[in-house]
Amino acid sequence: MKKKVAIVGASGYTGRELLRLLAQHPFLQATAVMTARAGTQPEPPAFPNDPVIAAYDEQALRTVDGVFLCTPHGAASEIAKAALAAGRKVVDLSADFRLRSPERYAAVYGAPHPAPELLTEAIYGLTEHARAAVTAARLVANPGCYPTSVLLPLLPLLQAGLLDPHAPIVSDSKSGTSGAGKNPSERTHFGNVHENFCAYGIGNHRHQPEICQQAGTERVVFVPHLLPTFRGILSTLYLTPATGTTAERMRSCLQERYGHEAFVQVYAKGAPELRCVQMSNQCHIAVHACGPVAVVVSVLDNLLKGASGQALQNMNLMLGLPEGAGLS
Amino acid sequence: MKKKVAIVGASGYTGRELLRLLAQHPFLQATAVMTARAGTQPEPPAFPNDPVIAAYDEQALRTVDGVFLCTPHGAASEIAKAALAAGRKVVDLSADFRLRSPERYAAVYGAPHPAPELLTEAIYGLTEHARAAVTAARLVANPGCYPTSVLLPLLPLLQAGLLDPHAPIVSDSKSGTSGAGKNPSERTHFGNVHENFCAYGIGNHRHQPEICQQAGTERVVFVPHLLPTFRGILSTLYLTPATGTTAERMRSCLQERYGHEAFVQVYAKGAPELRCVQMSNQCHIAVHACGPVAVVVSVLDNLLKGASGQALQNMNLMLGLPEGAGLS
Amino acid sequence: MKKKVAIVGASGYTGRELLRLLAQHPFLQATAVMTARAGTQPEPPAFPNDPVIAAYDEQALRTVDGVFLCTPHGAASEIAKAALAAGRKVVDLSADFRLRSPERYAAVYGAPHPAPELLTEAIYGLTEHARAAVTAARLVANPGCYPTSVLLPLLPLLQAGLLDPHAPIVSDSKSGTSGAGKNPSERTHFGNVHENFCAYGIGNHRHQPEICQQAGTERVVFVPHLLPTFRGILSTLYLTPATGTTAERMRSCLQERYGHEAFVQVYAKGAPELRCVQMSNQCHIAVHACGPVAVVVSVLDNLLKGASGQALQNMNLMLGLPEGAGLS
Amino acid sequence: MKKKVAIVGASGYTGRELLRLLAQHPFLQATAVMTARAGTQPEPPAFPNDPVIAAYDEQALRTVDGVFLCTPHGAASEIAKAALAAGRKVVDLSADFRLRSPERYAAVYGAPHPAPELLTEAIYGLTEHARAAVTAARLVANPGCYPTSVLLPLLPLLQAGLLDPHAPIVSDSKSGTSGAGKNPSERTHFGNVHENFCAYGIGNHRHQPEICQQAGTERVVFVPHLLPTFRGILSTLYLTPATGTTAERMRSCLQERYGHEAFVQVYAKGAPELRCVQMSNQCHIAVHACGPVAVVVSVLDNLLKGASGQALQNMNLMLGLPEGAGLS
Repeated sequence: MKKKVAIVGASGYTGRELLRLLAQHPFLQATAVMTARAGTQPEPPAFPNDPVIAAYDEQALRTVDGVFLCTPHGAASEIAKAALAAGRKVVDLSADFRLRSPERYAAVYGAPHPAPELLTEAIYGLTEHARAAVTAARLVANPGCYPTSVLLPLLPLLQAGLLDPHAPIVSDSKSGTSGAGKNPSERTHFGNVHENFCAYGIGNHRHQPEICQQAGTERVVFVPHLLPTFRGILSTLYLTPATGTTAERMRSCLQERYGHEAFVQVYAKGAPELRCVQMSNQCHIAVHACGPVAVVVSVLDNLLKGASGQALQNMNLMLGLPEGAGLS
Repeated sequence: MKKKVAIVGASGYTGRELLRLLAQHPFLQATAVMTARAGTQPEPPAFPNDPVIAAYDEQALRTVDGVFLCTPHGAASEIAKAALAAGRKVVDLSADFRLRSPERYAAVYGAPHPAPELLTEAIYGLTEHARAAVTAARLVANPGCYPTSVLLPLLPLLQAGLLDPHAPIVSDSKSGTSGAGKNPSERTHFGNVHENFCAYGIGNHRHQPEICQQAGTERVVFVPHLLPTFRGILSTLYLTPATGTTAERMRSCLQERYGHEAFVQVYAKGAPELRCVQMSNQCHIAVHACGPVAVVVSVLDNLLKGASGQALQNMNLMLGLPEGAGLS
Repeated sequence: MKKKVAIVGASGYTGRELLRLLAQHPFLQATAVMTARAGTQPEPPAFPNDPVIAAYDEQALRTVDGVFLCTPHGAASEIAKAALAAGRKVVDLSADFRLRSPERYAAVYGAPHPAPELLTEAIYGLTEHARAAVTAARLVANPGCYPTSVLLPLLPLLQAGLLDPHAPIVSDSKSGTSGAGKNPSERTHFGNVHENFCAYGIGNHRHQPEICQQAGTERVVFVPHLLPTFRGILSTLYLTPATGTTAERMRSCLQERYGHEAFVQVYAKGAPELRCVQMSNQCHIAVHACGPVAVVVSVLDNLLKGASGQALQNMNLMLGLPEGAGLS
Repeated sequence: MKKKVAIVGASGYTGRELLRLLAQHPFLQATAVMTARAGTQPEPPAFPNDPVIAAYDEQALRTVDGVFLCTPHGAASEIAKAALAAGRKVVDLSADFRLRSPERYAAVYGAPHPAPELLTEAIYGLTEHARAAVTAARLVANPGCYPTSVLLPLLPLLQAGLLDPHAPIVSDSKSGTSGAGKNPSERTHFGNVHENFCAYGIGNHRHQPEICQQAGTERVVFVPHLLPTFRGILSTLYLTPATGTTAERMRSCLQERYGHEAFVQVYAKGAPELRCVQMSNQCHIAVHACGPVAVVVSVLDNLLKGASGQALQNMNLMLGLPEGAGLS
């Protein structure tokens, strides 16, 4: 007997990715697949094998064990409240519960937080760094795609005191267009992406405060770029070692920290490329010396370890299942 | 009466780009279009409109006013010597004359320098920073594509003392595949580039010593990446301002320095993308504050301002022609 | 003294392409660059070098010699009437005047024709097949991109009686996404185009009746496909030779017909690819035998010979200028 | 206890695809993963998770139940003989056993057939049309990627007599570059594929005689094209119906023929795109009327239903396993 989950906001990229993963999951099945708003007439499938998506139905949340929220930020909070009230576990893939401070949320997202009473309870679900808390949680804020690619290599180095505490922590990050979602826009028009490349959100991207919060420092410099690819994030970090530390020692630190992790791999040599992790829940990391700094390259699939894959890791833990089920 | 130029190594991307530019040039024509080696049977053109390329013929160098060398590094020096001996002006697009020190050349390129006697004479042709010297030169070393994208924004800031003299100078640079040349390789196989992205040469790319030499500091951290595009370089620089300096002041510095330049443009707002400069000889630059650093975005077309376009700027000057002829 | 032209609907791809061509034109300049509707507040340029586009102003049409209409179909007719009334020459790049029958227009475009009185006067501007008429015309209907790629090889073969009069005339055509225009849509979302390919409009594409009309037969089978490229159309035609005819004879026919044309080239061997014609006003054609049929491959740049380039050819003729001015 | 298979020629795209499929297979495991030639020192894996490939070892063939040959044509025959002599089942993904006539093989592949004595025994493994024979076979010739995309829609229509017996059977086929294999070449250089498109092999592609043989007619006109994608084939067929037949009847014929097949799907409306089948073992088919012909669109993943997926279907049958094992 498989446990049951709902996907709310199933028509977007992260919802579809969850459906694909759940179709192979040994212990979970998606029994409620819905849009984010009641009364929204879902579009008929464009192709015969596309999933059928129902209009949002709050009652359906009572029929499942866990709920994935794949809605836009702002819309997730109300549904989360309803699901929690019904006693269901919730993994929210939107940004609603990632920032702990409602003031910061308001500043970053331009609106008052819709459910500030839940902020203290929500667990930031960077799974490898919050396993026990996620297992016990009712509500998990699934990390942003960029922050996951930055925090996985960064946190162990910070915790081990291997970084110069005064130097900037620079992450030059590049993402495929699926990070911008399924809705057509100027930004994702083929003619604007193909044979093009750009930086965007310099100094004001919403993932910068999220990274700062989790890293516990405001010295993070995060500049995202848009790649002419569909899937994948590659972050290149420029980190100044603490006095007496080397890139080799930083690599060893990460190898020790992640040596037993199934979904994080630290390279002994070479550097990972997007294709090493596309279609997998893996984050691959390399560390190399380059003059005065250590250069860290981190890659993941933004729709998997950067979104739906990590969400499933978290839901597995919350429902008492093996963490990697459905993710191999 | 147009002046005459030769292109040696005309079958590669930079040679073909020069042919394209010269076809529209009001004062220059390509009258000798050759491979890099005598006796090399050139391939017949693949398509009816492709240029016909002859085998290398040293005598042909005597029939022209200027010579463009589009050969691999190492092969350019001998041809340069022959052309100079015949009294011709030479612009070398290879790396042979970019590093002033023969020792450094040997360390970086893995072979003794083939013509060390010419190194003191060769002018590093970053045109906007060497106009007088280029105009008077017999031999110009055309800068590398990545170094041009880094040095154009960097040099004025260094010269004005606007950068923290102890902080790393980080350039995270991304290039289209045409930078890797016309010969098929694992690296440029469609299946390895498309829907992929990677960093390469971390800590050992040949353009890093070139940038360091011109910048006069070893604090440069240069990490190149391979984009799934054909044309274009975007460099994102992370620069720590000197005490009391701001990103705005750095932008003003660049605006003043390049305000009268035809081929460098500094944005008052926004940031340039690859498509802003593809197929042009322009370098576009933006400066923005991002936490503790200034983020500089610099874009150019690696085959034009990063290679053949700048080479033509230089040749125009050397032959007494208007610098921008054939480049509008 | 250059003559003056207006571009109405200048923000789309064909308008921008005209601006690019006119910037290099020896005898023409764009002095009125407008949107398609009065009162439409044009967007400010996204980048410093983007053209400034004014709101539509009918008075401005009186200040020019010729008018290019780059508006959507339906919107062009009213502006054409105003420009003609002011005594100006008009090249309409929309579909408004391509079909001679107002009934067929209504059936194909789903609305009554907005200016049926002009239909008899409008010249279908496939330049190489309508040179005299275009030269004398007040109003030219610029051919569709696909029809140009099909009709250039097809018409001489039909006129010479080299095709089986009972066999289907099949054109399997493939276009880059710029043919779908600048406005974002599901169809042109990067995630739907990249690493994808599809046929569309099977049996009901609007260019099929246009091709049938000009070919004088309803036996045309036209199936368009969407390529993951920006520019270019490649049409593969499958033509059954008339009894006793061969592919070689068909090739000779085309070589004779186009031997003196500047913008059409017939290959003696091999087959053209998109890159042979991108960024040029050329149409390249090859003919090869393949079992019972002759296979014709025809390529052009849909924004140039398939739109703005051919429009400029036509305008040049209408204003008494050399046909190829601004197009080399 | 899983059964064991060997993969010979495992470093290419089809070998790697088999490894990926077998990693999830419930009843099969790859226990011998080899290059195609003894003494060939296999390259070390480029990335930590890449498979380790051994040099060819004929003895290893005796340790397995089935052998997949992913070698170039010509090289497969000798290994097939050795494997058959050892009593093993063989699925050959090369072209060695696809043509029944050694004379035709010699004409098409330019060399005498290396094992003509096996030609009468080899079964052409278009699974849905050869299930019983494949189940009983020792040696299966796995069909070419293009032929699979053409024959699946074509054979039932021919067998039902729905096609005009005198009209050409046209297939305009388009493939991603993975069909050209893993070795770098001019043809697959990123700069030659990206933003490009071409027809190739017009009138002389090796898959044309293969299609003709299986279709039992020389009226096939097959023109392949190279898409700027990695995976996928889309074939557009232009078929003249027999007198009194319609596209609708042809569609019904295919729906009946494939209604119970797991890996072939016939659309009631719309048309499939590459993305409908990428990463799956599916072939999707649509039929629409277009003037005098029926247009059939057929798509598959050239590395799966067009190669390794169908090979696994066949091996499953040969080893007494459920046909779809490892392919869902």
